[in-house]
Amino acid sequence: MSYLGIGVSPGNVPVHHGSNLKVIDKRVRIIELILRCLILGLAIIGAVLIGTDSQVKVIFSIKKEAKFTDMKVLVFLVIANGLAAAYSLIQVLRCIFSMIRGSVLFNKPLAWVIFSGDQLMAYLSLAAVAASAQSGVISKLGQPELQWMKVCNLYGKFCNQIGEGIASSLIVSLGMIALSGISAFSLFRLYGNNGGKSNAG
Amino acid sequence: MSYLGIGVSPGNVPVHHGSNLKVIDKRVRIIELILRCLILGLAIIGAVLIGTDSQVKVIFSIKKEAKFTDMKVLVFLVIANGLAAAYSLIQVLRCIFSMIRGSVLFNKPLAWVIFSGDQLMAYLSLAAVAASAQSGVISKLGQPELQWMKVCNLYGKFCNQIGEGIASSLIVSLGMIALSGISAFSLFRLYGNNGGKSNAG
Repeated sequence: MSYLGIGVSPGNVPVHHGSNLKVIDKRVRIIELILRCLILGLAIIGAVLIGTDSQVKVIFSIKKEAKFTDMKVLVFLVIANGLAAAYSLIQVLRCIFSMIRGSVLFNKPLAWVIFSGDQLMAYLSLAAVAASAQSGVISKLGQPELQWMKVCNLYGKFCNQIGEGIASSLIVSLGMIALSGISAFSLFRLYGNNGGKSNAG
Repeated sequence: MSYLGIGVSPGNVPVHHGSNLKVIDKRVRIIELILRCLILGLAIIGAVLIGTDSQVKVIFSIKKEAKFTDMKVLVFLVIANGLAAAYSLIQVLRCIFSMIRGSVLFNKPLAWVIFSGDQLMAYLSLAAVAASAQSGVISKLGQPELQWMKVCNLYGKFCNQIGEGIASSLIVSLGMIALSGISAFSLFRLYGNNGGKSNAG
Protein backbone atom coordinates (compact mmCIF):
# COMPACT_ATOMS: atom_id res chain seq x y z
CA MET A 1 0.00 0.00 0.00
CA SER A 2 2.81 2.37 0.86
CA TYR A 3 4.26 2.42 -2.65
CA LEU A 4 0.93 3.38 -4.20
CA GLY A 5 0.94 6.78 -2.53
CA ILE A 6 4.54 7.79 -3.02
CA GLY A 7 6.55 8.81 -5.99
CA VAL A 8 3.82 10.58 -7.92
CA SER A 9 3.84 14.06 -9.40
CA PRO A 10 1.73 15.96 -11.95
CA GLY A 11 3.88 14.41 -14.63
CA ASN A 12 3.28 10.77 -13.76
CA VAL A 13 0.13 10.56 -11.66
CA PRO A 14 -1.51 7.15 -11.88
CA VAL A 15 -5.16 7.22 -12.97
CA HIS A 16 -6.71 6.59 -9.55
CA HIS A 17 -4.71 9.35 -7.89
CA GLY A 18 -5.32 11.73 -10.74
CA SER A 19 -9.08 11.37 -10.34
CA ASN A 20 -8.73 11.67 -6.55
CA LEU A 21 -6.81 14.93 -6.97
CA LYS A 22 -9.34 16.18 -9.47
CA VAL A 23 -12.27 15.53 -7.15
CA ILE A 24 -10.54 17.40 -4.30
CA ASP A 25 -9.59 20.23 -6.62
CA LYS A 26 -13.10 20.55 -7.99
CA ARG A 27 -14.61 20.70 -4.51
CA VAL A 28 -12.07 23.25 -3.31
CA ARG A 29 -12.69 25.39 -6.36
CA ILE A 30 -16.47 25.30 -5.95
CA ILE A 31 -16.20 26.22 -2.25
CA GLU A 32 -13.79 29.00 -3.19
CA LEU A 33 -16.15 30.39 -5.83
CA ILE A 34 -19.17 30.33 -3.49
CA LEU A 35 -17.19 32.04 -0.72
CA ARG A 36 -15.89 34.72 -3.07
CA CYS A 37 -19.40 35.46 -4.41
CA LEU A 38 -20.74 35.64 -0.84
CA ILE A 39 -17.97 38.05 0.16
CA LEU A 40 -18.58 40.18 -2.94
CA GLY A 41 -22.26 40.54 -2.06
CA LEU A 42 -21.82 41.12 1.66
CA ALA A 43 -18.98 43.62 1.18
CA ILE A 44 -21.19 45.70 -1.12
CA ILE A 45 -24.11 45.44 1.33
CA GLY A 46 -21.85 46.45 4.23
CA ALA A 47 -20.40 49.43 2.36
CA VAL A 48 -23.84 50.63 1.21
CA LEU A 49 -25.43 50.19 4.66
CA ILE A 50 -22.73 52.27 6.32
CA GLY A 51 -22.07 54.71 3.49
CA THR A 52 -25.72 55.75 3.05
CA ASP A 53 -26.51 55.95 6.76
CA SER A 54 -27.58 59.29 8.22
CA GLN A 55 -30.12 60.56 10.69
CA VAL A 56 -31.34 64.08 11.46
CA LYS A 57 -32.39 65.04 14.98
CA VAL A 58 -33.81 68.32 16.19
CA ILE A 59 -32.53 69.06 19.70
CA PHE A 60 -33.76 72.34 21.22
CA SER A 61 -34.64 73.55 17.72
CA ILE A 62 -31.05 72.91 16.58
CA LYS A 63 -30.89 70.52 13.66
CA LYS A 64 -28.16 67.93 14.08
CA GLU A 65 -27.25 65.33 11.51
CA ALA A 66 -25.36 62.10 12.22
CA LYS A 67 -23.34 60.88 9.24
CA PHE A 68 -20.95 57.98 8.97
CA THR A 69 -18.12 60.44 8.25
CA ASP A 70 -18.45 61.72 11.84
CA MET A 71 -16.51 58.63 12.82
CA LYS A 72 -13.32 58.28 10.82
CA VAL A 73 -13.12 54.56 11.50
CA LEU A 74 -16.37 54.01 9.59
CA VAL A 75 -14.82 55.68 6.56
CA PHE A 76 -11.98 53.17 6.90
CA LEU A 77 -14.53 50.33 7.10
CA VAL A 78 -16.36 51.53 3.97
CA ILE A 79 -13.02 51.69 2.11
CA ALA A 80 -12.04 48.23 3.38
CA ASN A 81 -15.39 46.83 2.22
CA GLY A 82 -14.99 48.52 -1.15
CA LEU A 83 -11.53 47.00 -1.57
CA ALA A 84 -12.83 43.58 -0.51
CA ALA A 85 -15.65 43.83 -3.07
CA ALA A 86 -13.35 44.92 -5.92
CA TYR A 87 -10.80 42.23 -5.03
CA SER A 88 -13.49 39.55 -4.82
CA LEU A 89 -14.92 40.56 -8.19
CA ILE A 90 -11.52 40.07 -9.83
CA GLN A 91 -11.08 36.73 -8.03
CA VAL A 92 -14.57 35.52 -9.03
CA LEU A 93 -13.74 36.25 -12.68
CA ARG A 94 -10.43 34.39 -12.29
CA CYS A 95 -12.20 31.41 -10.69
CA ILE A 96 -14.80 31.23 -13.48
CA PHE A 97 -12.10 31.62 -16.14
CA SER A 98 -10.00 28.81 -14.68
CA MET A 99 -13.09 26.60 -14.30
CA ILE A 100 -14.01 27.10 -17.97
CA ARG A 101 -10.45 26.37 -19.03
CA GLY A 102 -10.48 23.42 -16.63
CA SER A 103 -6.96 24.18 -15.47
CA VAL A 104 -5.61 23.25 -12.06
CA LEU A 105 -3.44 25.72 -10.20
CA PHE A 106 0.13 24.47 -10.62
CA ASN A 107 1.57 27.92 -11.20
CA LYS A 108 3.66 29.10 -8.25
CA PRO A 109 3.85 32.85 -9.02
CA LEU A 110 0.06 33.07 -9.48
CA ALA A 111 -0.50 31.01 -6.32
CA TRP A 112 1.79 33.40 -4.42
CA VAL A 113 -0.14 36.44 -5.72
CA ILE A 114 -3.50 34.93 -4.70
CA PHE A 115 -2.13 33.83 -1.32
CA SER A 116 -0.68 37.28 -0.57
CA GLY A 117 -3.84 39.07 -1.71
CA ASP A 118 -6.10 36.86 0.40
CA GLN A 119 -3.90 37.25 3.47
CA LEU A 120 -3.75 41.02 3.08
CA MET A 121 -7.51 41.34 2.59
CA ALA A 122 -8.26 39.06 5.56
CA TYR A 123 -6.06 41.04 7.96
CA LEU A 124 -7.19 44.42 6.59
CA SER A 125 -10.84 43.47 6.81
CA LEU A 126 -10.50 42.05 10.33
CA ALA A 127 -8.64 45.14 11.57
CA ALA A 128 -11.32 47.45 10.13
CA VAL A 129 -14.11 45.40 11.72
CA ALA A 130 -12.37 45.25 15.11
CA ALA A 131 -11.72 49.00 15.17
CA SER A 132 -15.30 49.79 14.07
CA ALA A 133 -16.75 47.38 16.58
CA GLN A 134 -14.78 49.13 19.31
CA SER A 135 -16.22 52.50 18.29
CA GLY A 136 -19.64 50.87 18.10
CA VAL A 137 -19.34 49.54 21.64
CA ILE A 138 -18.36 52.99 22.95
CA SER A 139 -21.29 54.54 21.05
CA LYS A 140 -23.69 52.01 22.47
CA LEU A 141 -22.46 51.78 26.07
CA GLY A 142 -20.45 54.95 26.49
CA GLN A 143 -17.23 55.16 28.49
CA PRO A 144 -18.30 56.94 31.69
CA GLU A 145 -14.78 56.94 33.17
CA LEU A 146 -13.65 59.17 30.29
CA GLN A 147 -16.92 61.08 30.02
CA TRP A 148 -17.62 59.75 26.55
CA MET A 149 -21.41 59.62 26.39
CA LYS A 150 -23.39 56.99 24.57
CA VAL A 151 -24.77 58.47 21.37
CA CYS A 152 -26.95 55.55 20.33
CA ASN A 153 -29.90 56.52 22.51
CA LEU A 154 -29.93 59.78 20.55
CA TYR A 155 -29.48 58.32 17.08
CA GLY A 156 -31.10 54.91 17.41
CA LYS A 157 -31.93 54.23 13.78
CA PHE A 158 -28.50 55.45 12.67
CA CYS A 159 -26.76 53.17 15.15
CA ASN A 160 -28.77 50.10 14.19
CA GLN A 161 -27.91 50.50 10.53
CA ILE A 162 -24.20 50.90 11.41
CA GLY A 163 -24.50 47.73 13.49
CA GLU A 164 -25.93 45.82 10.53
CA GLY A 165 -23.10 47.13 8.36
CA ILE A 166 -20.49 45.98 10.88
CA ALA A 167 -22.15 42.55 11.16
CA SER A 168 -22.06 42.20 7.39
CA SER A 169 -18.39 43.22 7.37
CA LEU A 170 -17.64 40.70 10.09
CA ILE A 171 -18.96 37.89 7.86
CA VAL A 172 -16.83 39.31 5.04
CA SER A 173 -13.71 39.08 7.18
CA LEU A 174 -14.53 35.57 8.41
CA GLY A 175 -15.01 34.53 4.77
CA MET A 176 -11.68 36.12 3.88
CA ILE A 177 -10.01 34.18 6.71
CA ALA A 178 -11.43 30.92 5.33
CA LEU A 179 -10.28 31.86 1.83
CA SER A 180 -6.78 32.67 3.01
CA GLY A 181 -6.65 29.14 4.41
CA ILE A 182 -7.74 27.71 1.07
CA SER A 183 -5.18 29.75 -0.87
CA ALA A 184 -2.45 28.77 1.61
CA PHE A 185 -3.38 25.14 0.92
CA SER A 186 -3.29 25.74 -2.86
CA LEU A 187 0.10 27.43 -2.65
CA PHE A 188 2.06 25.36 -0.17
CA ARG A 189 1.08 21.95 -1.44
CA LEU A 190 3.08 22.93 -4.52
CA TYR A 191 6.06 22.70 -2.13
CA GLY A 192 5.30 19.05 -1.51
CA ASN A 193 7.63 16.25 -0.63
CA ASN A 194 9.82 16.69 -3.68
CA GLY A 195 11.52 19.71 -2.07
CA GLY A 196 9.94 22.51 -4.05
CA LYS A 197 11.05 21.13 -7.38
CA SER A 198 7.58 20.27 -8.72
CA ASN A 199 7.86 22.94 -11.39
CA ALA A 200 11.08 21.54 -12.81
CA GLY A 201 9.29 19.00 -14.94
CA MET B 1 16.60 17.21 -15.44
CA SER B 2 12.88 16.80 -15.15
CA TYR B 3 13.02 13.29 -13.75
CA LEU B 4 15.42 14.28 -10.98
CA GLY B 5 12.88 16.48 -9.29
CA ILE B 6 9.77 14.34 -9.55
CA GLY B 7 8.68 11.18 -7.93
CA VAL B 8 10.35 11.66 -4.56
CA SER B 9 8.85 11.37 -1.11
CA PRO B 10 10.20 11.06 2.45
CA GLY B 11 10.53 7.37 1.81
CA ASN B 12 12.83 7.55 -1.20
CA VAL B 13 14.46 10.99 -1.21
CA PRO B 14 17.74 11.00 -3.15
CA VAL B 15 20.73 12.27 -1.20
CA HIS B 16 20.99 15.71 -2.83
CA HIS B 17 17.29 16.47 -2.27
CA GLY B 18 17.40 15.15 1.25
CA SER B 19 20.16 17.57 2.21
CA ASN B 20 18.37 20.38 0.35
CA LEU B 21 15.20 19.70 2.36
CA LYS B 22 17.21 19.53 5.58
CA VAL B 23 18.85 22.91 4.94
CA ILE B 24 15.45 24.54 4.25
CA ASP B 25 13.93 22.88 7.30
CA LYS B 26 16.78 23.96 9.54
CA ARG B 27 16.51 27.57 8.41
CA VAL B 28 12.73 27.60 8.78
CA ARG B 29 13.00 26.14 12.27
CA ILE B 30 15.62 28.67 13.37
CA ILE B 31 13.53 31.59 12.02
CA GLU B 32 10.49 30.12 13.77
CA LEU B 33 12.34 29.82 17.10
CA ILE B 34 13.68 33.40 16.91
CA LEU B 35 10.22 34.76 16.05
CA ARG B 36 8.56 32.85 18.86
CA CYS B 37 11.13 34.08 21.42
CA LEU B 38 10.67 37.65 20.16
CA ILE B 39 6.89 37.37 20.47
CA LEU B 40 7.20 35.87 23.95
CA GLY B 41 9.30 38.82 25.12
CA LEU B 42 7.27 41.55 23.45
CA ALA B 43 3.93 40.11 24.56
CA ILE B 44 5.12 40.17 28.18
CA ILE B 45 6.47 43.72 27.77
CA GLY B 46 3.18 44.86 26.19
CA ALA B 47 1.05 43.28 28.92
CA VAL B 48 3.22 44.75 31.70
CA LEU B 49 3.36 48.23 30.13
CA ILE B 50 -0.43 48.42 29.86
CA GLY B 51 -1.31 46.45 32.98
CA THR B 52 0.85 48.52 35.34
CA ASP B 53 -0.07 51.89 33.85
CA SER B 54 -1.82 54.46 36.03
CA GLN B 55 -1.67 58.19 36.63
CA VAL B 56 -3.18 60.37 39.37
CA LYS B 57 -4.29 63.94 38.62
CA VAL B 58 -5.68 66.51 40.99
CA ILE B 59 -8.34 68.62 39.25
CA PHE B 60 -9.98 71.33 41.38
CA SER B 61 -8.78 69.47 44.49
CA ILE B 62 -10.53 66.28 43.30
CA LYS B 63 -8.13 63.36 42.97
CA LYS B 64 -8.70 61.41 39.76
CA GLU B 65 -6.85 58.27 38.78
CA ALA B 66 -6.56 56.89 35.26
CA LYS B 67 -6.19 53.10 35.16
CA PHE B 68 -6.07 50.78 32.21
CA THR B 69 -9.30 49.13 33.44
CA ASP B 70 -11.13 52.39 32.64
CA MET B 71 -11.03 51.23 29.04
CA LYS B 72 -12.37 47.72 28.66
CA VAL B 73 -10.56 47.21 25.37
CA LEU B 74 -7.20 47.55 27.15
CA VAL B 75 -8.19 44.70 29.47
CA PHE B 76 -8.85 42.66 26.31
CA LEU B 77 -5.42 43.65 24.97
CA VAL B 78 -3.67 42.62 28.21
CA ILE B 79 -5.47 39.25 28.08
CA ALA B 80 -4.58 38.79 24.40
CA ASN B 81 -0.93 39.56 25.18
CA GLY B 82 -0.98 37.13 28.09
CA LEU B 83 -2.40 34.40 25.89
CA ALA B 84 0.18 35.15 23.18
CA ALA B 85 2.98 34.91 25.77
CA ALA B 86 1.74 31.63 27.24
CA TYR B 87 1.18 30.14 23.79
CA SER B 88 4.63 31.25 22.60
CA LEU B 89 6.29 29.75 25.67
CA ILE B 90 4.74 26.35 24.91
CA GLN B 91 5.75 26.67 21.26
CA VAL B 92 9.33 27.67 22.13
CA LEU B 93 9.63 24.57 24.30
CA ARG B 94 8.24 22.44 21.46
CA CYS B 95 10.69 24.00 18.97
CA ILE B 96 13.66 23.34 21.26
CA PHE B 97 12.49 19.80 21.96
CA SER B 98 12.10 19.01 18.25
CA MET B 99 15.49 20.60 17.52
CA ILE B 100 17.20 18.44 20.16
CA ARG B 101 15.46 15.33 18.87
CA GLY B 102 16.37 16.47 15.34
CA SER B 103 12.95 15.46 14.03
CA VAL B 104 11.29 17.05 11.01
CA LEU B 105 7.58 17.81 11.13
CA PHE B 106 5.93 15.07 9.07
CA ASN B 107 3.05 14.60 11.50
CA LYS B 108 -0.22 15.91 10.09
CA PRO B 109 -2.29 16.11 13.30
CA LEU B 110 0.47 18.06 15.11
CA ALA B 111 0.93 20.32 12.08
CA TRP B 112 -2.83 21.01 12.07
CA VAL B 113 -2.76 21.90 15.79
CA ILE B 114 0.17 24.29 15.33
CA PHE B 115 -1.40 25.82 12.21
CA SER B 116 -4.77 26.37 13.93
CA GLY B 117 -3.15 27.80 17.05
CA ASP B 118 -0.99 30.22 15.08
CA GLN B 119 -3.93 31.38 12.95
CA LEU B 120 -6.13 31.90 16.00
CA MET B 121 -3.45 33.84 17.87
CA ALA B 122 -2.65 36.00 14.83
CA TYR B 123 -6.27 37.04 14.30
CA LEU B 124 -6.97 37.47 18.01
CA SER B 125 -3.88 39.56 18.51
CA LEU B 126 -4.57 41.73 15.44
CA ALA B 127 -8.20 42.32 16.47
CA ALA B 128 -7.12 43.36 19.98
CA VAL B 129 -4.49 45.74 18.60
CA ALA B 130 -6.89 47.28 16.06
CA ALA B 131 -9.61 47.86 18.66
CA SER B 132 -7.12 49.33 21.16
CA ALA B 133 -5.56 51.53 18.51
CA GLN B 134 -9.02 52.88 17.70
CA SER B 135 -9.61 53.77 21.35
CA GLY B 136 -6.13 55.26 21.45
CA VAL B 137 -6.86 57.48 18.46
CA ILE B 138 -10.08 58.74 20.04
CA SER B 139 -8.23 59.39 23.32
CA LYS B 140 -5.51 61.29 21.51
CA LEU B 141 -7.58 63.26 18.98
CA GLY B 142 -11.07 63.16 20.46
CA GLN B 143 -14.21 62.85 18.37
CA PRO B 144 -15.67 66.35 18.44
CA GLU B 145 -18.75 65.40 16.38
CA LEU B 146 -19.83 63.08 19.19
CA GLN B 147 -18.52 65.28 22.00
CA TRP B 148 -15.98 62.71 23.06
CA MET B 149 -13.11 64.80 24.42
CA LYS B 150 -9.47 63.94 24.10
CA VAL B 151 -8.19 62.66 27.41
CA CYS B 152 -4.51 62.45 26.54
CA ASN B 153 -3.79 66.13 27.21
CA LEU B 154 -4.98 65.42 30.76
CA TYR B 155 -3.16 62.13 31.30
CA GLY B 156 -0.08 62.54 29.10
CA LYS B 157 2.26 60.08 30.82
CA PHE B 158 -0.52 57.48 31.06
CA CYS B 159 -1.33 57.78 27.36
CA ASN B 160 2.30 57.51 26.27
CA GLN B 161 2.80 54.28 28.18
CA ILE B 162 -0.41 52.85 26.67
CA GLY B 163 0.93 53.86 23.26
CA GLU B 164 4.17 51.97 23.89
CA GLY B 165 2.16 48.93 24.99
CA ILE B 166 0.05 49.03 21.82
CA ALA B 167 3.19 49.41 19.66
CA SER B 168 4.72 46.37 21.35
CA SER B 169 1.48 44.42 20.81
CA LEU B 170 1.45 45.45 17.16
CA ILE B 171 4.88 43.85 16.66
CA VAL B 172 3.54 40.75 18.45
CA SER B 173 0.65 40.48 16.01
CA LEU B 174 2.89 41.06 12.97
CA GLY B 175 5.17 38.30 14.26
CA MET B 176 2.18 36.04 14.73
CA ILE B 177 1.09 36.74 11.14
CA ALA B 178 4.55 35.73 9.89
CA LEU B 179 4.45 32.59 12.04
CA SER B 180 1.04 31.61 10.75
CA GLY B 181 2.52 31.76 7.25
CA ILE B 182 5.37 29.48 8.31
CA SER B 183 3.04 26.96 9.95
CA ALA B 184 0.74 27.02 6.89
CA PHE B 185 3.81 26.14 4.83
CA SER B 186 4.79 23.35 7.23
CA LEU B 187 1.28 21.91 7.16
CA PHE B 188 0.18 22.15 3.57
CA ARG B 189 3.38 20.92 1.99
CA LEU B 190 2.48 17.60 3.62
CA TYR B 191 -0.39 17.61 1.10
CA GLY B 192 2.08 17.66 -1.75
CA ASN B 193 1.71 16.31 -5.25
CA ASN B 194 0.88 12.81 -4.14
CA GLY B 195 -2.67 13.85 -3.29
CA GLY B 196 -2.50 13.85 0.49
CA LYS B 197 -1.25 10.29 0.71
CA SER B 198 2.23 11.11 1.99
CA ASN B 199 1.46 9.60 5.37
CA ALA B 200 0.46 6.25 3.89
CA GLY B 201 4.05 5.02 3.79
